[in-house]
Amino acid sequence: MNGAETLVETMLASGVTVCFANPGTSEMHFVAALDTHPDMRCILCLFEGGVTGAADGYARMSGNVAGTLLHLGPGFANGWANLHNARKGHSGIVNVVGDHAGYHLKHDAPLQSDLDGVAGSVSHWMRRAGEADEVAPLGAEAIRAARGGEIATLILPADSAWGESTAAPVTAAPPRVKHLPDTARIEAAAEALKEPGAALLPGGPALYGAGAELAGRISTRTGARLIAPFFSPRIELGGGAVAFEQMFYQGAQNAEFLKDIKSLTCLGEAPPVNFFAYPGQPSTPDPAGCVIDKLCHPDWDIQGTLEALAEAAGVDGSEDIARIETTIPDPGTGGLTPDGVGRALANATPDSAIMVNEAVTAGFGIWPHVNAAARHDRINTTGGAIGQCLPAALGAAVACPDRPVFAVSGDGSAMYQVQSLWTAARERLNITFIIIANRGYQILHHELEAQGAPKPGRNARAMFDIEDPLIDWQAMAAGHGVAAARATTCEEMTAALAQAASTPGPFLIEAVTG
Amino acid sequence: MNGAETLVETMLASGVTVCFANPGTSEMHFVAALDTHPDMRCILCLFEGGVTGAADGYARMSGNVAGTLLHLGPGFANGWANLHNARKGHSGIVNVVGDHAGYHLKHDAPLQSDLDGVAGSVSHWMRRAGEADEVAPLGAEAIRAARGGEIATLILPADSAWGESTAAPVTAAPPRVKHLPDTARIEAAAEALKEPGAALLPGGPALYGAGAELAGRISTRTGARLIAPFFSPRIELGGGAVAFEQMFYQGAQNAEFLKDIKSLTCLGEAPPVNFFAYPGQPSTPDPAGCVIDKLCHPDWDIQGTLEALAEAAGVDGSEDIARIETTIPDPGTGGLTPDGVGRALANATPDSAIMVNEAVTAGFGIWPHVNAAARHDRINTTGGAIGQCLPAALGAAVACPDRPVFAVSGDGSAMYQVQSLWTAARERLNITFIIIANRGYQILHHELEAQGAPKPGRNARAMFDIEDPLIDWQAMAAGHGVAAARATTCEEMTAALAQAASTPGPFLIEAVTG
Repeated sequence: MNGAETLVETMLASGVTVCFANPGTSEMHFVAALDTHPDMRCILCLFEGGVTGAADGYARMSGNVAGTLLHLGPGFANGWANLHNARKGHSGIVNVVGDHAGYHLKHDAPLQSDLDGVAGSVSHWMRRAGEADEVAPLGAEAIRAARGGEIATLILPADSAWGESTAAPVTAAPPRVKHLPDTARIEAAAEALKEPGAALLPGGPALYGAGAELAGRISTRTGARLIAPFFSPRIELGGGAVAFEQMFYQGAQNAEFLKDIKSLTCLGEAPPVNFFAYPGQPSTPDPAGCVIDKLCHPDWDIQGTLEALAEAAGVDGSEDIARIETTIPDPGTGGLTPDGVGRALANATPDSAIMVNEAVTAGFGIWPHVNAAARHDRINTTGGAIGQCLPAALGAAVACPDRPVFAVSGDGSAMYQVQSLWTAARERLNITFIIIANRGYQILHHELEAQGAPKPGRNARAMFDIEDPLIDWQAMAAGHGVAAARATTCEEMTAALAQAASTPGPFLIEAVTG
Repeated sequence: MNGAETLVETMLASGVTVCFANPGTSEMHFVAALDTHPDMRCILCLFEGGVTGAADGYARMSGNVAGTLLHLGPGFANGWANLHNARKGHSGIVNVVGDHAGYHLKHDAPLQSDLDGVAGSVSHWMRRAGEADEVAPLGAEAIRAARGGEIATLILPADSAWGESTAAPVTAAPPRVKHLPDTARIEAAAEALKEPGAALLPGGPALYGAGAELAGRISTRTGARLIAPFFSPRIELGGGAVAFEQMFYQGAQNAEFLKDIKSLTCLGEAPPVNFFAYPGQPSTPDPAGCVIDKLCHPDWDIQGTLEALAEAAGVDGSEDIARIETTIPDPGTGGLTPDGVGRALANATPDSAIMVNEAVTAGFGIWPHVNAAARHDRINTTGGAIGQCLPAALGAAVACPDRPVFAVSGDGSAMYQVQSLWTAARERLNITFIIIANRGYQILHHELEAQGAPKPGRNARAMFDIEDPLIDWQAMAAGHGVAAARATTCEEMTAALAQAASTPGPFLIEAVTG
């Protein structure tokens, strides 16, 4: 068995059965090994940002780890931005990156670069296999790290892949035991939550499923406000979901929203910070004098902390959890706006949907309606690197083939990893892409104003507006093999959503709101 | 004047008048400064790989430096692969990368990342402005470095951009004087070139214009073979151009090609290395016992070395330089193949064209015909990172608005930075995009075989072939606002090239050869 084969078998033995990929020559022996292991599902993306973003979406919805296959430094760099989003969302990913054979490196061939530098700048765990025998044990270490929520990158030089290995495949160990705050800290936090002006800010797995239920009980039992971050990696919403108060994008809105809190207990989430700095504005939205307790860091044991805190707070299961009440708005009429998109989508949201959100400005109009529609999971762009939505939808659809996925993206963001449409068509994934065609980076108009700059002139408009030429999203979809419709009114939006629901595989709706 | 304004004025004072851009919030003050300086041409690309690839193409064809504007770590990372290609091609680029205000960094906001790490892994020169006063002098240093062929990255935290500066704009100094080999080395090289079995391998500016003429004279005077690298950053070809013998892609072909040489003098080019390593194969194609003289490193004074070497070799201007003889093939008939694309293109090549090449497998059929067509410049993907062709064509067209540009790319490569089509339409650039639709990463089929692996099975085909679904390139072009035609026969290819020539602005030809 060569090194590549031991790695594929290590992955399969450890339950890593999906590999999002864009390989090149230096990965050919790994490709050959995948060929003889049909249990591994290999999914091609036509750009590496799709590869890594899909692995992130897969991790968020499956709770499991996917592999990626990337081609040397440039291939890794192309996937960097979505690895950044994954890192900020605490998604574990195993990257397998090919490199030249070790003895070839001294020649500085064209594709040679500072691979260790670029990979190290976003990975928690990074190792380079020196020879074939090291591949399987390092692969198992990488999987273990990724299961703990880390970006794990294994550099696989071609000669370690093709070399004969005497090492057997390895089943990865369970993730390392995560840190739990000590009892005194937990008890103090439980007491603090009972004081007036207390708020609890959960993150990670405390925003959905059993974690959210516990967070809801703690809030009810203590009387503390229950607050969710704006860019939560995954949160349950819609009728019946635990009712978190949601933070906002803009720092000024968050400052108003938080102005009466006296203490904030962060449980699996970092303290709030404004997305950007602005001249003369504070960096964080918390009011003066507010006590911030970083009770549980995002990479500690969030579920364990929730359980311990619930016990310390006296949670007994009898709590009446505040839940979102289903409220379906009228579907709207006339010219399409973000509000109209939200109304139509709220009416069309099926049970158990997954909504992937990268519509920041349009989202202000869309999501208030959808938040109270049928129960669903929401995925957000955690690291602020645009181009996450379409790839993450791929990964979510692969992880949850029985759940309808909606990818709601601004047009500027959607262009970033537009090649993901092709993978959705190839894999027949049940994704409805809703592209908000407002013909520009609308957020930048807001931000220029927020920075105190004057109205945009010729050069600023040249960099903010994408209306010359207009992107034809129906043609873009056709180019990638995806069926599509255009909606310019609320009625057309409703009809397009119905068409999407009755179309097998992916469907793209160009929602013209601009 | 704030820091951003001093930087824009420093760029303009130093002759940097084009800025390829994809800004975000942290760059808003720089955007505002660009707004009040209409002499700076700001060109938006819808993905950062377009930004950096365009700056590379601009540098290769103008000999001047363009600026890029990138948004924090993820924006830089998205441009990394084409910066790698630029670095391998010795193109100078000035990257301006925004970052959070310095005082905001301690909060680890979502978009915060290891920007210094990712930028440092591909930049020759990298500095971070600490305060507004530092911006103009650092900007001038960056421009100076870029003029010397370096990737220069200036990190511009938001508060250094918006802060008031007491420093005036700075005109960048001329590039540092480059190293010239000493006289004894030059004279020894001139003597060596006169020995039997000698070959000269020039690079950089020795492959076009006055440099190529000198290289041709040295070859004639000494009798040495004159060899050009396969991945030359820019080379003059077509009738009347200096006749270099061209190296090949595959190591085995190069080994055959070089088998009789006894010495190889590298002048502005590194010694030949095989693109990848293969089990049991050598890393380099030079024959055993061949003396390799690294006379002039690629970042030394290539023109000066050429002149000194010419003088030492006794070049007196009377040399009869071997030149390419114009040979136009018949245009072909019937079903389209790469050979047919080459025939049609050779017939349609106008004077002074710029051909950007990223068609590796199809290129074997195309370029032999075009090499002897009308005189033109050829740009190649120097670093092997796919996705250079379309962006580099943008930059070449901006640098040379009076010259017709042809971007010839495989379909897999073209998808990498497909968003560049939109910028070509927006800027009305005279580019003919020829997409070789062979429906896959054909090179990988060759490489799997070259690595000694068995025939591709299900998983390998899932990662090599892009025929399910077929990409509809006419729809892709329409989506980006570019006119297009499809050619499936030689006759249609000829007609499509005529249509492209008579269409103002960009035009895309889907050349179906698969």
